[in-house]
Amino acid sequence: EEEIAFFVRGFTAGEIPDYQMSALLMAIFFRGMTGDELSAMTREMMLSGDTLDLSVFGEHTADKHSTGGVGDKTTLIAAPIAASLGCRIAKMSGRGLGFTGGTVDKLESIPGFRTVLAPEEFEEQVKRVGIAVVGQSGSLAPADKKIYALRDVTATIESIPLIASSIMSKKLAAGSKNIVLDVKVGSGAFMKDSEQGRKLAETMVGIGKACSRRVSAVISNMNVPLGSAVGNALEVLEAVEILKGEGDVALRTLCVELAAQMVSLSFEKPIDECRAAAKDAIRDGSALAKFREWIGAQGGDTAFIDDPASLCPAKVEYVLTAPRSGFIGAINASEVGKASMLLGAGREEVGDPIDPSAGIRLLKKPGDPVAAGETLAILFTSDELRIPASAELLLDSVAIGDERPEAQRLIIDVIS
Amino acid sequence: EEEIAFFVRGFTAGEIPDYQMSALLMAIFFRGMTGDELSAMTREMMLSGDTLDLSVFGEHTADKHSTGGVGDKTTLIAAPIAASLGCRIAKMSGRGLGFTGGTVDKLESIPGFRTVLAPEEFEEQVKRVGIAVVGQSGSLAPADKKIYALRDVTATIESIPLIASSIMSKKLAAGSKNIVLDVKVGSGAFMKDSEQGRKLAETMVGIGKACSRRVSAVISNMNVPLGSAVGNALEVLEAVEILKGEGDVALRTLCVELAAQMVSLSFEKPIDECRAAAKDAIRDGSALAKFREWIGAQGGDTAFIDDPASLCPAKVEYVLTAPRSGFIGAINASEVGKASMLLGAGREEVGDPIDPSAGIRLLKKPGDPVAAGETLAILFTSDELRIPASAELLLDSVAIGDERPEAQRLIIDVIS
Repeated sequence: EEEIAFFVRGFTAGEIPDYQMSALLMAIFFRGMTGDELSAMTREMMLSGDTLDLSVFGEHTADKHSTGGVGDKTTLIAAPIAASLGCRIAKMSGRGLGFTGGTVDKLESIPGFRTVLAPEEFEEQVKRVGIAVVGQSGSLAPADKKIYALRDVTATIESIPLIASSIMSKKLAAGSKNIVLDVKVGSGAFMKDSEQGRKLAETMVGIGKACSRRVSAVISNMNVPLGSAVGNALEVLEAVEILKGEGDVALRTLCVELAAQMVSLSFEKPIDECRAAAKDAIRDGSALAKFREWIGAQGGDTAFIDDPASLCPAKVEYVLTAPRSGFIGAINASEVGKASMLLGAGREEVGDPIDPSAGIRLLKKPGDPVAAGETLAILFTSDELRIPASAELLLDSVAIGDERPEAQRLIIDVIS
Repeated sequence: EEEIAFFVRGFTAGEIPDYQMSALLMAIFFRGMTGDELSAMTREMMLSGDTLDLSVFGEHTADKHSTGGVGDKTTLIAAPIAASLGCRIAKMSGRGLGFTGGTVDKLESIPGFRTVLAPEEFEEQVKRVGIAVVGQSGSLAPADKKIYALRDVTATIESIPLIASSIMSKKLAAGSKNIVLDVKVGSGAFMKDSEQGRKLAETMVGIGKACSRRVSAVISNMNVPLGSAVGNALEVLEAVEILKGEGDVALRTLCVELAAQMVSLSFEKPIDECRAAAKDAIRDGSALAKFREWIGAQGGDTAFIDDPASLCPAKVEYVLTAPRSGFIGAINASEVGKASMLLGAGREEVGDPIDPSAGIRLLKKPGDPVAAGETLAILFTSDELRIPASAELLLDSVAIGDERPEAQRLIIDVIS
């Protein structure tokens, strides 16, 4: 513990040179770390910058983290469900990069919504509404930022202990007592196979517990995009559909599970009871009401909740049709994410502007029958020149075959 | 090959940062390298600086390298034997550091001996005498120097491929066609066990062959100091004893083997024949004559060859006696090396001055019977204040027991 603290502190302070940290990172890459070593390292990374003290909100503070996927709008749904059931959500979220989106970008497609709040505003809102979501502060876990930059240039990104410590150092610094991790596995996720995903989940849960948090992890399928919408405003609208009890069943199931996990950890209640409560919160409208209250509290114009067409309408819509009849097979999630990025919905580099109206609405999902000429998806953008490349990529990413493919499990496992 | 060349060249030129090289070194530390990778890396390290072209001396240029031990004066003996049998020895040697000595330091204890020669002088001497030994040039394999400095601060020293490439890059750059490696194993060597020593030997022989050299490696025991003398002038005098056909049998056996290997590689003759020739060269005085010619050619006063007492007499001599009767058991070579260093014979840091007269003459070897009060060793130094600590350490390093210990094999194996 002392040695690790010396190393992480020295490196963050610039006293231990890059070449020693990169040697250590490569050693960890090949040799791993024991649970104690990893918890000690993560704790030091957490302590390298600001740590939020959410004790003012009591014991029921809950956070949720996704390892990143395509069409992942679960925070917009699970967080208000959990808040409507008594969790205190004082959350920081990130922006999108590459083919994966970010909650902050999605929220900013709502006119007036402010993702930067003064500390006293933030506190007041969490106390009054039960939920506030702001952009991530750069001063959380600066050691992670510095270590990540070095991993990026030394081929040490794909290491489970290093990924786990990176994620958990920030989640721990963000202060919630109860943390639910959504570990995505599949073609549209960082982790390509579920064994790796399970290891990552177990590792992160272990770190969290060693640092006195209540943590669980849901391992979920990201071979296909989550839900039907990919793109910022489109995903906000899909979140509203789910909160209204409509829309994609798989997406709803996952959001119910994530919200139930948050409630179950926070109140130490059986998960079955919490799942039922989460479904009820959708059914009786309380989750949607909490969503409305939250968006309004952060300055967002809530008109789109009742009038979806009013939110950020795209100048150009393009209908992509099926080239042949058959059954929808695989839909490559990362390719759909890239097609959406080509429409302007994502950024290639940090700081690039994005088009909030851009994105894709998939009208068919794997297993659906389709006739030649039938609509597969609708593409949205402000710039019609972006259509051809995106449409071509999207068409390539959707397989149509003669056989109905086997259904894939959405929730692969829960680790707690 | 291209990738490795890019990396080694870029690092040597300062274009690839330390943190990337240290990550690669740690990856090699844990994962090793294939033979092709290692040969490619070693070749690039060799090409990073000057490479000596010894083709002017013909096909029989021979070099010898020891991985370092205590009391290792084999170059002073094996090189003139091999030269007397027709090998061309155009050799660079190093200085001592820590408890291991260096040939250049030993030679410099001879009054007038010059370890720096102008290139034309060096060439003329090798052509005329068949042997010249000078200090190592800093411009050989600068990549190795830079990589070694990084290994030293990133805990990547003890890696067989990295040790092998470090040694071989310099040996290859030094230009000899035929290279004999003396790989020391045991308490007084860098490699503590013979399995590691064998791996290192095989790895270095493999690199040398891949780079079109004829190479063999002798794996020899360094659990006890080699011969009786440790210290610079003392070792020169012991070399003369051996060349006169006197002195320690184990030391003579190893030197005959090393010289025979050099001759065998250089002339592609059977090793048995070469061993007999090496013994003859001692017996008939031709090896000693070659030694005398060599020392004289480099400006050394050869009076000590006939009058050993004239070479660098020490101001202080101290007789260490046996505290009890019994049989000499283990003599810890590295402790004897340190005891000699404490007398002034070695340096703790590069650049420290040394006392050429300082050192230890062991009068007993493992297996010898000894009576309480009998002389175990004589300590030599210019500074009597250095005696007590050294004598204490030396006494601790010699075990005396009731049973005669089993004899240890000197030459463990030969790899070719």
